[in-house]
Amino acid sequence: MTSTATTDEPAPQGAAGTDETVRAAHAAFLAARTHSRDERAAWMDAIADALEANREDLVALAGAESNLPDARLNGELTRTAFQLRLLGEEARRGEFLGATIDHADADWGMGPRPDVRRMNVPLGVVGVFGASNFPFAFSVIGGDSASALAAGCAVVHKLHPAHQGLARRTARLVADALESAGAPAGLFGAVEGREAAEALVDHPLVRAVGFTGSEAGGRALFDRAVARPEPIPFYGELGSLNPVVVTEAAWAAQGEDLLAGWMGSMTMGVGQFCTKPGLLLLPETAAEAAQTALPRLASEVAPAAGMLTESIRDGFVANRDAVAGSTDVDVLVAGDAANPPAPGVLQVRGADLTEDSPAIRTEMFGPAAVLITYADDAELERVLDLLGGQLTGTIHSADGEDISRVLQQLQDRCGRVLRGGWPTGVTVSFAQHHGGPYPAATQTATSVGTAAIDRWLRPVAFQDMEDAMLPAELQESNPTGIARRVDGEWVAAQ
Amino acid sequence: MTSTATTDEPAPQGAAGTDETVRAAHAAFLAARTHSRDERAAWMDAIADALEANREDLVALAGAESNLPDARLNGELTRTAFQLRLLGEEARRGEFLGATIDHADADWGMGPRPDVRRMNVPLGVVGVFGASNFPFAFSVIGGDSASALAAGCAVVHKLHPAHQGLARRTARLVADALESAGAPAGLFGAVEGREAAEALVDHPLVRAVGFTGSEAGGRALFDRAVARPEPIPFYGELGSLNPVVVTEAAWAAQGEDLLAGWMGSMTMGVGQFCTKPGLLLLPETAAEAAQTALPRLASEVAPAAGMLTESIRDGFVANRDAVAGSTDVDVLVAGDAANPPAPGVLQVRGADLTEDSPAIRTEMFGPAAVLITYADDAELERVLDLLGGQLTGTIHSADGEDISRVLQQLQDRCGRVLRGGWPTGVTVSFAQHHGGPYPAATQTATSVGTAAIDRWLRPVAFQDMEDAMLPAELQESNPTGIARRVDGEWVAAQ
Repeated sequence: MTSTATTDEPAPQGAAGTDETVRAAHAAFLAARTHSRDERAAWMDAIADALEANREDLVALAGAESNLPDARLNGELTRTAFQLRLLGEEARRGEFLGATIDHADADWGMGPRPDVRRMNVPLGVVGVFGASNFPFAFSVIGGDSASALAAGCAVVHKLHPAHQGLARRTARLVADALESAGAPAGLFGAVEGREAAEALVDHPLVRAVGFTGSEAGGRALFDRAVARPEPIPFYGELGSLNPVVVTEAAWAAQGEDLLAGWMGSMTMGVGQFCTKPGLLLLPETAAEAAQTALPRLASEVAPAAGMLTESIRDGFVANRDAVAGSTDVDVLVAGDAANPPAPGVLQVRGADLTEDSPAIRTEMFGPAAVLITYADDAELERVLDLLGGQLTGTIHSADGEDISRVLQQLQDRCGRVLRGGWPTGVTVSFAQHHGGPYPAATQTATSVGTAAIDRWLRPVAFQDMEDAMLPAELQESNPTGIARRVDGEWVAAQ
Repeated sequence: MTSTATTDEPAPQGAAGTDETVRAAHAAFLAARTHSRDERAAWMDAIADALEANREDLVALAGAESNLPDARLNGELTRTAFQLRLLGEEARRGEFLGATIDHADADWGMGPRPDVRRMNVPLGVVGVFGASNFPFAFSVIGGDSASALAAGCAVVHKLHPAHQGLARRTARLVADALESAGAPAGLFGAVEGREAAEALVDHPLVRAVGFTGSEAGGRALFDRAVARPEPIPFYGELGSLNPVVVTEAAWAAQGEDLLAGWMGSMTMGVGQFCTKPGLLLLPETAAEAAQTALPRLASEVAPAAGMLTESIRDGFVANRDAVAGSTDVDVLVAGDAANPPAPGVLQVRGADLTEDSPAIRTEMFGPAAVLITYADDAELERVLDLLGGQLTGTIHSADGEDISRVLQQLQDRCGRVLRGGWPTGVTVSFAQHHGGPYPAATQTATSVGTAAIDRWLRPVAFQDMEDAMLPAELQESNPTGIARRVDGEWVAAQ
């Protein structure tokens, strides 16, 4: 199937347009509950198929609006389709239902136990905000939308203006694919504009929100979501500096290769990744070599077409300059204010950092990062203790080196801890966790991977219910054959 | 072991006392991480043993402070000890860790997958607020504290002033039992007073809060928790009216037995249960019989010693009188303002209710409830649609009757749906869910049952980590033998 749209009309706007879209989504949510998990998965497969069938058009549109290269966008579209199918497969398996059965038990230790059966049910209509930096994977039908559909929710998506044309086209494609596959009309809707964004978070029928973006914007919407008469969960992924620690022994073993790897990861996608390694913690003994190598490595970074938008460039330059101008920070590689800006590296001694230092508090969303030199293990420990919540933390160490203390410190403030490698690149899998202590995320949940589905569910327990009245997944004969915990013991899927 | 305390000294108070207690708890949390899940479970068993060894003293103290009868308090202490042991057993099993392993996979559909392993880790120090109405099971070492300890967290408990002597005694007993069992000093601490309550929610080292209490008090603390520079999860159980629907057919089959059952559940514990069935939805055809029977049934309720506190009595009387005085509400059984107040029944026609009617918005925490008569199924449906979030919803129907529509409506707004029976009495088990849409709860989580542990955890993913650096639960050989999901498939505990 290819898109039949010849023009991409604007999505509904304002409070009225949002209300209408949310109400349609709610009606579709109610209708969708009569469909099986297998059917839902088939709807998601249909969306994945539609994305791939329109790959050429979509990638061209995305490239024109985002400055991102075709190879990257093609990979991202593949990821997005894969993600839809993987999450659909999770819907088929039904493990996220957490189906649990306690049979009545007259000898239960605290007194007779009734028959109690619990499973998770979808929340209802979910609001999803697209991110600027992943026009496919974290946008219209990215991880938030796909996981919400897998959970059985309806989605109203707030289009990101940075790729408005692509977003409108994708939204139309998704709605068409769902309709062709037999899903209730309105199960996926889109709105656009600032007024719609606020109306979406406020709407009584919206039961949760997914967001990926800046700390300032995300916190404002979070505050709105929790100030409602009935607060709703706001799953925001807001900001992260993604520290990378290089130990003395790792430096001795790998030296400048580490700097080259860092420069590559830090400037990938013009530094516009939430997992960009924005802090490099290097032993002081490596400082001189780094000061020589990094300017050269920065000058060798392949030129890109530009940042996502002019305003993102402006914001980046302002943040970079603010950090550069802060106390005790030196400019090692200046960068510039072109679009895209040339890579920049700022440096600061670990000993000079305090909890409020802009160098460890300011996300520079673009191609610049901070080199932090540390004198010894005690200073490294102190610096790590100053850091806020992070999506990722990485340690480069020598084989067999005891890094347990650094690992514990990273684990305490990061959602994902890497040994070696670089944090950019987030695989979509069963074990993935993309989140972390605030401000990395506003909740403990992940926004990437199969566990992202859990965000859009709530548990319901049924007590002493007649078998035929129970949802199929909780009926005694287990007609859908899912894994269940029965009287405390897990029984595998059939 | 029996308590060695001869006097029960006040717990630390104010911001300074809270800070000191939280810091000690945090140090203990860090130390406790070096202990195994088996050791943690043994600590919890030791607390349960200590409660039972001091049963006589504790029940006497609780009775004197709460007006609750010995039989109830003995049962509640048994429940509390059982709960500690059951949650400890969950810690031994380790399933709440959600251990998930994705081996590296060069052929992963979206591009090569690194080795990623995820498990849940404890949040840190948790603040727990005691409830007035369960001096054991929802207080010092009730479900919130027990589940937090099972998760591996440290607990700072805000004592409830309604049973201050008992709370101080219990807190001392818990701390002593933990110390004797080898737990780090400070793993459980207590504070008291309003200033301490606010300081506890605000403290940077407090990572989550558990609360059971009133909607007004709970919302104020929720607002505080989410307004922090780093917002934290606030697991509040705030209020519920617990509707009970009686169908025409159920009335025909069971008649006045239903009214007697309702009166018993509604006045149990002087109506001071969060699951008190505060709304009875009865077909109009039953109205006349109910109007005759309920005054008699109310007069037959066995007298109790008094409500928990004078201020709870005052609040109850004020709320009851406010509902009684609201538009379209009639007083069927007046009750009084004694302590305890005589049971009261108010009545209203379903047709007269609107979304804002006090009769379906006001929790009367005490022995009074509202009889709602409905003309037909359409009116019943409309009334149910007006209701807010609830902990429980109950339907009495005839065998084989199609009640799917009512069930769906109850499921949409309740955490637990019962067929027959009464909602008072909440078993602690694997499948239990005690929560529900706001204001029943501020989050989707449960505060009762083994799943309550999930509230105090956050996931961490490890990428490409050397096996020996991983937590034991994620090491390839699975040394602790827990259930894990490996490459998408669950592998049972060994």
